[in-house]
Amino acid sequence: MRNVDMRNFSVPGYKAWGIHCGIKKTDKKDLAIIYSDREASVAGVFTKNRVKAASVLLDMARVKSGKGQAIIANSGCANACTGKRGYGDARATAEIAARELGIKPDAVYVASTGVIGEFLPMPKIATGISTAAGLLSATGWEQAAEAVMTTDIYPKLAAVQEEIGGKTVTVAGIAKGSGMIHPKLATMLCFIVTDASISPPMLKKALLAATEKSFNSITVDGDTSTNDLVLCMANGAAGNKRPAAGGKDSKKFQACLDAVARLLAKQIVRDGEGATKFVEIEVRNARTPVEAKRAAVTVAGSNLVKTALFGEDANWGRIMAALGYSGVEMDEAKTDIYFGKAKLVEKGLAAGKHAERDAMLALKQREVQIIIDLHKGKGNAAVWTCDLSCEYVKINAAYRS
Amino acid sequence: MRNVDMRNFSVPGYKAWGIHCGIKKTDKKDLAIIYSDREASVAGVFTKNRVKAASVLLDMARVKSGKGQAIIANSGCANACTGKRGYGDARATAEIAARELGIKPDAVYVASTGVIGEFLPMPKIATGISTAAGLLSATGWEQAAEAVMTTDIYPKLAAVQEEIGGKTVTVAGIAKGSGMIHPKLATMLCFIVTDASISPPMLKKALLAATEKSFNSITVDGDTSTNDLVLCMANGAAGNKRPAAGGKDSKKFQACLDAVARLLAKQIVRDGEGATKFVEIEVRNARTPVEAKRAAVTVAGSNLVKTALFGEDANWGRIMAALGYSGVEMDEAKTDIYFGKAKLVEKGLAAGKHAERDAMLALKQREVQIIIDLHKGKGNAAVWTCDLSCEYVKINAAYRS
Repeated sequence: MRNVDMRNFSVPGYKAWGIHCGIKKTDKKDLAIIYSDREASVAGVFTKNRVKAASVLLDMARVKSGKGQAIIANSGCANACTGKRGYGDARATAEIAARELGIKPDAVYVASTGVIGEFLPMPKIATGISTAAGLLSATGWEQAAEAVMTTDIYPKLAAVQEEIGGKTVTVAGIAKGSGMIHPKLATMLCFIVTDASISPPMLKKALLAATEKSFNSITVDGDTSTNDLVLCMANGAAGNKRPAAGGKDSKKFQACLDAVARLLAKQIVRDGEGATKFVEIEVRNARTPVEAKRAAVTVAGSNLVKTALFGEDANWGRIMAALGYSGVEMDEAKTDIYFGKAKLVEKGLAAGKHAERDAMLALKQREVQIIIDLHKGKGNAAVWTCDLSCEYVKINAAYRS
Repeated sequence: MRNVDMRNFSVPGYKAWGIHCGIKKTDKKDLAIIYSDREASVAGVFTKNRVKAASVLLDMARVKSGKGQAIIANSGCANACTGKRGYGDARATAEIAARELGIKPDAVYVASTGVIGEFLPMPKIATGISTAAGLLSATGWEQAAEAVMTTDIYPKLAAVQEEIGGKTVTVAGIAKGSGMIHPKLATMLCFIVTDASISPPMLKKALLAATEKSFNSITVDGDTSTNDLVLCMANGAAGNKRPAAGGKDSKKFQACLDAVARLLAKQIVRDGEGATKFVEIEVRNARTPVEAKRAAVTVAGSNLVKTALFGEDANWGRIMAALGYSGVEMDEAKTDIYFGKAKLVEKGLAAGKHAERDAMLALKQREVQIIIDLHKGKGNAAVWTCDLSCEYVKINAAYRS
């Protein structure tokens, strides 16, 4: 597998673009189209929130076919908590796009991010889709990525290539985060495309596995949005032989998908609202991998841990307290905690001034690794998070308009 | 039931005091003694965190007897994550106090709050206990309350009186919070005393019930500390006839205990770290009372909701999103949300500009009430919380020393 130069990269059979159509009050881009020149396998992963945006409900129904050809995404309006009218607007968005692109309405997926409780401005959306469809370009990925940003500071893109089934296959993706969720400007969205030929069931399985170790392993503020979704299209333009389940090629494809998802997930955390630090929390030797992840997510989600990281304070007591209420099997007297390479806590007790000084140095970096060894079993997991800064509060306290 | 004037109040049979003995690096008070002149019934409620401070472990063992006569509490050092030496220090603290007060060591309870992972300075504690024991006063409650403060801005006291079993009975309490938990300066502590004569089993039951509707209904930052505890002593100095289980007098006593616990819990939220607003979240008509409380706690614990409150933004979409991931039965299309008296959301949809304006006015107050009607059943619950401000981040990012 190799990384792809992100300047003007393209994925065979796909075009993309992003424009400003007037949903946002600023002049920033707010509408993106991703289009495949042929029908593709499609898989999706959706928010578990009971309150789901219209776009999520529509896509959940459509993805059952395992097929599709285009994605329309907008920022500035979440089209969530908008009832029947909102669902109708999501359907209408797909219909307008289908007409402009000359494809079936059922082949169009939609995604929205932005303020909850407001209706999509449909006339602007219609004009915007028409304009963007006319500008579609094989190298329009950065424009598309910009058009889904809300409080994101920079667009998020990733791409890798690999030889699969005798052909070079590209897997590329764009995402928006800024916060695991953003405020009222709800959410994390990700679109991954590949020219690989993959059956819908295999694509679904691969996407679920990739998501678990990427987007489901990051936390910025613990809130779960109404609009989160990950969509993946595989259009077969590479002409590869379809990988067989469990075979070498299927593993290679999984590795590519994993890599793109992880690259995007890490970019989301790096660009977390107000973040000054990228933090990896690794839990080793928990009773099970599930407990390891639960412990890591609990530590990563603690406001007290996150503010201490912002303050560059090696405050391991807060980590121990978070482990204690995480609900996993742990024994304080067996627990070791490392900050970077410094073993700050040994068997539940402070390891001394020397270790504390080394831990302080590790904390001064922009990237921080915290390792927790529970000595309870063989379960390991790592999650990524950011610190909690004053800027986070300011961003999220700002009024919606 | 009547409130008691808090200036120089006393509770028959008790003395209290607080001093600075040198645990804190400032000159603020850091050691408190509460003493009953006779053996009292004692009940306790303790943190559910798996990582428990030495004081919590010691008290959990002692409270099985249902008896006790004194409480020694310190701030500045949590004596948590301190292993065997820490447990020995907690025992020694009780022994020193027992000697000074002329009572049995097993009759002494201890409580600590402060930095995790550091050892108690035992020589200072010994001198401090001796000094404080010499100063014990029937009206020393405010001094005792000051001595358990960490980032609290003001001491927290409450007292009520009631006629029970033919006598006037006083129930009084002191607490520290500042944060449901405080940072590294761990925690919420509460000590309630009464001159009522109550059997240990009835006292335990009454304290559990009072805690559920007070300290278990507040959230500042969702973290659960290693040191949280509530202790209640009933020494019988009032000379009342012991209330019978289920009788009128037992209900009156429960009402007094409930009132003191709620008064203290609300003071803790009002003095939450960095708080600018006191917020009541009331959930009505959930499927069950347990689901109502779970929904209310989830909304109260959302960083996005709390930052919106700080920003005085009537951002109901974040409330709906929190309800959606709370795990309780809810249907967006049935849900109403009120800010104060303004019905901002009706059946899942924005109720219009007029309601939004009224909600904005309600949000500008220092005390805010949010009512959520799920229309799913008959379960009700209310929790209290505060907003999440830049000041919270600053307080918690500050280094321990």
